Amino acid sequence: MFIKNCWYVIAWDKEVPAEGLLARTVINVPLVLWRDTQGKVIAFEDRCCHRGAPLSMGRKEGGDCVRCMYHGLVFDKTGQCVAAPAQNRIPPQMKVRAFPVVETHRWVWVWMGDPALADEKLIPQTPWLDHPEWRSLDGYLHYDTNYLLIADNLLDFSHLPYLHPTSVGGSHDYASVLPKVERRERGVYLTKWVKDTDPPAYSAKYGNYPPGQKVDRWMFYEFQVPGVLLMDSGMVPAGNNAAEGERVNAIAFRGCQALTPETDNSTHYFFAHCHNFLIDQPEVTQSIHNGILTAFEEDRQMITLQDRNLRLDPTFKMQPLSVDAGLGQFRWVVDQMIKREQSEEPHAAA
Amino acid sequence: MFIKNCWYVIAWDKEVPAEGLLARTVINVPLVLWRDTQGKVIAFEDRCCHRGAPLSMGRKEGGDCVRCMYHGLVFDKTGQCVAAPAQNRIPPQMKVRAFPVVETHRWVWVWMGDPALADEKLIPQTPWLDHPEWRSLDGYLHYDTNYLLIADNLLDFSHLPYLHPTSVGGSHDYASVLPKVERRERGVYLTKWVKDTDPPAYSAKYGNYPPGQKVDRWMFYEFQVPGVLLMDSGMVPAGNNAAEGERVNAIAFRGCQALTPETDNSTHYFFAHCHNFLIDQPEVTQSIHNGILTAFEEDRQMITLQDRNLRLDPTFKMQPLSVDAGLGQFRWVVDQMIKREQSEEPHAAA
Amino acid sequence: MFIKNCWYVIAWDKEVPAEGLLARTVINVPLVLWRDTQGKVIAFEDRCCHRGAPLSMGRKEGGDCVRCMYHGLVFDKTGQCVAAPAQNRIPPQMKVRAFPVVETHRWVWVWMGDPALADEKLIPQTPWLDHPEWRSLDGYLHYDTNYLLIADNLLDFSHLPYLHPTSVGGSHDYASVLPKVERRERGVYLTKWVKDTDPPAYSAKYGNYPPGQKVDRWMFYEFQVPGVLLMDSGMVPAGNNAAEGERVNAIAFRGCQALTPETDNSTHYFFAHCHNFLIDQPEVTQSIHNGILTAFEEDRQMITLQDRNLRLDPTFKMQPLSVDAGLGQFRWVVDQMIKREQSEEPHAAA
Repeated sequence: MFIKNCWYVIAWDKEVPAEGLLARTVINVPLVLWRDTQGKVIAFEDRCCHRGAPLSMGRKEGGDCVRCMYHGLVFDKTGQCVAAPAQNRIPPQMKVRAFPVVETHRWVWVWMGDPALADEKLIPQTPWLDHPEWRSLDGYLHYDTNYLLIADNLLDFSHLPYLHPTSVGGSHDYASVLPKVERRERGVYLTKWVKDTDPPAYSAKYGNYPPGQKVDRWMFYEFQVPGVLLMDSGMVPAGNNAAEGERVNAIAFRGCQALTPETDNSTHYFFAHCHNFLIDQPEVTQSIHNGILTAFEEDRQMITLQDRNLRLDPTFKMQPLSVDAGLGQFRWVVDQMIKREQSEEPHAAA
Repeated sequence: MFIKNCWYVIAWDKEVPAEGLLARTVINVPLVLWRDTQGKVIAFEDRCCHRGAPLSMGRKEGGDCVRCMYHGLVFDKTGQCVAAPAQNRIPPQMKVRAFPVVETHRWVWVWMGDPALADEKLIPQTPWLDHPEWRSLDGYLHYDTNYLLIADNLLDFSHLPYLHPTSVGGSHDYASVLPKVERRERGVYLTKWVKDTDPPAYSAKYGNYPPGQKVDRWMFYEFQVPGVLLMDSGMVPAGNNAAEGERVNAIAFRGCQALTPETDNSTHYFFAHCHNFLIDQPEVTQSIHNGILTAFEEDRQMITLQDRNLRLDPTFKMQPLSVDAGLGQFRWVVDQMIKREQSEEPHAAA
Repeated sequence: MFIKNCWYVIAWDKEVPAEGLLARTVINVPLVLWRDTQGKVIAFEDRCCHRGAPLSMGRKEGGDCVRCMYHGLVFDKTGQCVAAPAQNRIPPQMKVRAFPVVETHRWVWVWMGDPALADEKLIPQTPWLDHPEWRSLDGYLHYDTNYLLIADNLLDFSHLPYLHPTSVGGSHDYASVLPKVERRERGVYLTKWVKDTDPPAYSAKYGNYPPGQKVDRWMFYEFQVPGVLLMDSGMVPAGNNAAEGERVNAIAFRGCQALTPETDNSTHYFFAHCHNFLIDQPEVTQSIHNGILTAFEEDRQMITLQDRNLRLDPTFKMQPLSVDAGLGQFRWVVDQMIKREQSEEPHAAA
């Protein structure tokens, strides 16, 4: 069960080639992505309406059409079949589903539900991914688990000092401070300030702070359906009134992460960790990326084993802790949206 | 669901050794094949009636018996158990099922249904496989899909110019001519003549035709249950009245192909593409075989992805085109035979 | 379906490290094993009560506690959670299940059922594994099949001359003598004497018997739930009245084997074949171990294929033979115990 009326990150912009076709499955639906003659990304169901062949094994023709290379059907960019072998008249129902697509700030978003409801204003904005004053590297990981276990992970950072002690971990006192959790219409918003604490290992070096320098750390993030995290985090030397708005001598990041379910049991994970300091030093960007990637690999190993544990006993009941507030609220939002979609589906079809 | 009262190609004759045992599964039934002292092929269920061990891990004894090498039971060539360890009297129900087998023209056929109905006259004949004036190489491919998707492929050659442009493809005008489709009792019969067209790439060179030579091409084939294709195809220089029976300066082939379901989701594919020209040049035979094999690998890649697409959405409805006439009629024949067998099964058992 | 009120061999003692954590799944339950500061083995469910993370990815702390390294929960050796991040009060239901464990004679046993019923007197004793006058090597194999097919194998040694002709096989006359089978409360007891027979290949050489020496062979073994075989076997030169108690010039073994279901379709197999002759020659111990291992690999290959055969047709009915007496009685005992446990479960819960 997945939310359908929702924008999903389906690719980094560079992954959709100018000429070829990209196959990618989202919420169990195989999709094929390509660019028309204006460079606009088109997303079709990657399953020819004739016999179910993958259009991604086909080829672009005449710029704005795609030909299925099994039996030769040609589809225009609305998904309508406009030619078929040994067939003069093409029945109007001969078409593949085309999905609304928006390319913005380096990510390609696809709307998997009712096209009439595809509101671009619902797309979370990621300006740091292509802003001249910010730097980051394009990240991608594939998980063989359901996406919600990864969402759980991103909604409870109390795990940082335990699972990521040498990468993004930070100190235990930082982890033990619960964030403030606010429910939003399409997700949750978490905020946290911890003052006079030690800086985390992976970023302390960039501050040029003296040894033993205590810092004030902040973390604000929105986590929206289906699984998009946009985070403002960082630190300043302690005692600078940063919480009141002044960020003097700050080390700041904007994290952009998107979980896109591939199937019930697999997930695409797009991410970048943007920084606006030392932007003329590519090795700093690379090092920050490596630190994040190390941590995400640690997450993946743990979550994959957690997933095995949960599948071994479907009756297992989790025991809640106060650190679960964020993930609990987010799962509630997801459940409500799915229930609402299911109750409205007959009307939408009518 | 498979047709049972039907001859299935289970092996090339050379695959069944004079001495050893060959294991092969057909329509979910594990079989073991061996030769008796007269060289006649015997097919047993490859599952010992005692504890289910594979007889194919056993050995022939005394020429006309097979011993299970788990607990030592011995079976004569009717499948009756004739010896067991520490057992003087063998209960009569101690037996494995023996299947009717016929070896003819290089293929070994097995009847998977009621032995009383095993009529050898139903076996499609493949004389070109061992005729002195014809040449071919033994082909085999394994598919991880149901066999009907492959049957579909062989019943709609409109896919040739798209999926096989550089191998057996041929020209688009050839592909756009629909064959005449006739339903037969156990399959369909397709015929097609296309006049004044370009010769296909993989065989044009054998005609020694001048550059730009147009040809008349023909293709007649029977496709019978479970999935046996016997095809007469070829070409002559255009304007030779070949359609009226004269095959002057012809390049002709006899294609023999057999799909044998292994399990619900896997298939054995036996094939050979026989030619009667340049038969003293083994490199020609090899080259024709390679061309066919290249095309069949292209089919397998496409069909495997098509199969994934169909499994991702069991509710997917295919949209028919006129090119589907052959496969539509064949699938109807298969459905009818399965339904008839199921309705008759209680009577057969009584 | 597995017996729960039962001791399962979960590890060789050396596998549970002094410091680290060992993960091992038994009857579909993931377990983590570790040693407290006294060296006593502790077994927890390897699934944190909070979110299901594997505790085996965690670490020991303070000697007698284990910390989950996902979110940092700490468990004392009773399984009670004693610390959690950002949480002052730990709810009493915050605990993981701890299982009774006994380490005795080189094997670590765990009780998977009601701890109140965990009677140590039910543990089969294996003194030969650590007795100074006996030698053996630690054996382990993993099966991708249900454990009962392996139990069947160990309860019908008529398969020895067929499946193991060059290793532990022995002569056909030996195999054709049925053992006496007695049902016990928690298993079966098999006894067999065969007089004036040929010695088996793998052990004849140790007797220093003259060529052609006939022997009297014995085999007594208890096979107890869940699948523990303890066997006294061996031979003496024929005519020595060994059956009456005299074991002159004997070659004797004590076989210790334990089948522990991992999941419905996989099994841990612990074994050792102890001998009390030539104990100062490690190459003899190694050679005996190798002979056993060769035979067990032969068993595994056959049983894995048998398992495939049984899964291909769930309606397959096995035909019984008199050699099945042991396995038939053992399967009956297992069935009865499972039924009894299921009928008692509501009472136990009340």
